[in-house]
Amino acid sequence: MRAGFRPIIGITMGDAAGIGPEIVCKALSLEEVHRVCRPVVIGDAGVLEDAQGVARTDLRMRPVERVSDATFALGAMDVLDLHNIDLERLEMGRPQPMAGKASYEYIAEAVNLALSGETHGITTAPISKEALHMAGYDYPGHTEILAELTGTERYAMMFVAGPLKVILATIHVQLRRACDLIDEEGLLNTFGLAHETMLRFGVDDPRIAVAGLNPHAGEEGLFGDEELKIIGPAVERARRRGLNIHGPLPADTLFYRAKEGDFDIVVAMYHDQGCIPIKLLGFEIGVNITVGLPITRTSVDHGTAYRRAGLRLGTGNPSSLVEALKIASQLSGGSMD
Amino acid sequence: MRAGFRPIIGITMGDAAGIGPEIVCKALSLEEVHRVCRPVVIGDAGVLEDAQGVARTDLRMRPVERVSDATFALGAMDVLDLHNIDLERLEMGRPQPMAGKASYEYIAEAVNLALSGETHGITTAPISKEALHMAGYDYPGHTEILAELTGTERYAMMFVAGPLKVILATIHVQLRRACDLIDEEGLLNTFGLAHETMLRFGVDDPRIAVAGLNPHAGEEGLFGDEELKIIGPAVERARRRGLNIHGPLPADTLFYRAKEGDFDIVVAMYHDQGCIPIKLLGFEIGVNITVGLPITRTSVDHGTAYRRAGLRLGTGNPSSLVEALKIASQLSGGSMD
Repeated sequence: MRAGFRPIIGITMGDAAGIGPEIVCKALSLEEVHRVCRPVVIGDAGVLEDAQGVARTDLRMRPVERVSDATFALGAMDVLDLHNIDLERLEMGRPQPMAGKASYEYIAEAVNLALSGETHGITTAPISKEALHMAGYDYPGHTEILAELTGTERYAMMFVAGPLKVILATIHVQLRRACDLIDEEGLLNTFGLAHETMLRFGVDDPRIAVAGLNPHAGEEGLFGDEELKIIGPAVERARRRGLNIHGPLPADTLFYRAKEGDFDIVVAMYHDQGCIPIKLLGFEIGVNITVGLPITRTSVDHGTAYRRAGLRLGTGNPSSLVEALKIASQLSGGSMD
Repeated sequence: MRAGFRPIIGITMGDAAGIGPEIVCKALSLEEVHRVCRPVVIGDAGVLEDAQGVARTDLRMRPVERVSDATFALGAMDVLDLHNIDLERLEMGRPQPMAGKASYEYIAEAVNLALSGETHGITTAPISKEALHMAGYDYPGHTEILAELTGTERYAMMFVAGPLKVILATIHVQLRRACDLIDEEGLLNTFGLAHETMLRFGVDDPRIAVAGLNPHAGEEGLFGDEELKIIGPAVERARRRGLNIHGPLPADTLFYRAKEGDFDIVVAMYHDQGCIPIKLLGFEIGVNITVGLPITRTSVDHGTAYRRAGLRLGTGNPSSLVEALKIASQLSGGSMD
């Protein structure tokens, strides 16, 4: 963390037919965003100009050819314009191949800029999986695209919702399969990612809590033995390596304890175990982080909100995007003062 | 619900070495409790008198031989005294066979009184599974004891935490096994119990939401097929039978929606899926309900708190017990005015 340092964050516009462009306009018009980072949007300038009508913002559009041309001024929006949306053909509020292809291209460009060091990190607005599929891109979501574009094999999803931070040991798989996928090596990797990320958050000797897989963390083998055979030994190995790590602990009470400050981060064994408490606490302020990538990446914790976007109501809430930008900045060494 | 009707609720004292006696004294001294029910405690009068010193309450102890002798006066405590604790031998704050045996006997007596119609329902203070085991009673918890004592085979655990109500389709089993146990008939039974219980709560045409088992409720079979093959068809059958039922829905966003009032009750597929949001929202106000029994039964949603009880700090929080009494009264036809 460097005093006064404001990292350059590349913001992808997301799916043009969704809520992304609207919340990007709203977020970029906020002084609190410019105070912590220098934002540059990777998207389509025409769509963003149109979104200003919905967002009721009045930013000066500054299309730039390269990041070095950006001025990062409050009241303006520097846009790396990929010119990949035909506004005449765009139908708001529904998935379509043109917008799916475009949203992929924003991500690819944002990754290139981060890998080359032109930006310090990226924050992504929501995309539509369905639109991506229509365009021929067959990914479960952002995370897998980013892993592929950066050649990363060991990564994890992490979530922040107010006082609660959670990292997942497994992601988008059938629950039965998640049970099968939990192994000591994978857990040790996740524990390491949790530790490193918390250090980047500025937390010394972070307290890591590990959830059990079974009810009551198996209650000494009464309801399952994964805690005794896999999770417990992995925690023990991590502790011997110097991590401040605790568990496996019963998941039902653990998240409450973490929220209250007993732990800095929770390792959840499977998607819903971690995502239920995050969504419950942080429905509109949650942030996703992909950890393990060679670049900093945060994201909003909500979808394209097609229905609302289609109605052009202007009610899109930029809170999650604003939080995601603040966290991207923090993880990139930005000062939070 | 009958205007002005205050049901008679039998309250078990729970484990004598735990927080139960203390919170029973605190709850019974509250006017808000007497306003909704006529409480009678099933326990040991000596332990309860001793607990008054810790709880700093000043209730007049009224040992009674039968419920019909009780006067239910504010400022007094009617106790069906089972004389089964030797106060000289009792060690606060740790499990012991004497207290385990006694806690079983309170439950058995409370069940008899409810089955015979002398009380309208029961509310239980926390017991220690370990103490029960020491006394030779091998049950995972209250629920299984109650099912056995009442000869019930189809029952379910339900939880209330503020605005959120959750019923579990499976209970204390290994997560893998919970995946195996989910079948259409069992789900239909749980849906029916959810519906009936909500009617008893005074909700007409209750809106029941059913959680998926897999992340994103399987996302059309992408991450598991239980939603398509089992849960979806069960929901469809229940809907054809007239239930106002929805799902399977992605679990991570569902609990937030239920909390916000979109649904009256959520059917969770497994223990942690339902208990994580309940504990997060209602750590000290949560209530357990066993549904499907021939008697009304509610319980606190916390344990014996041996550590605190052993220190005789007097910091035990009676909120969960008070809520449990209110809900027992409501489910027994009591007026909530």
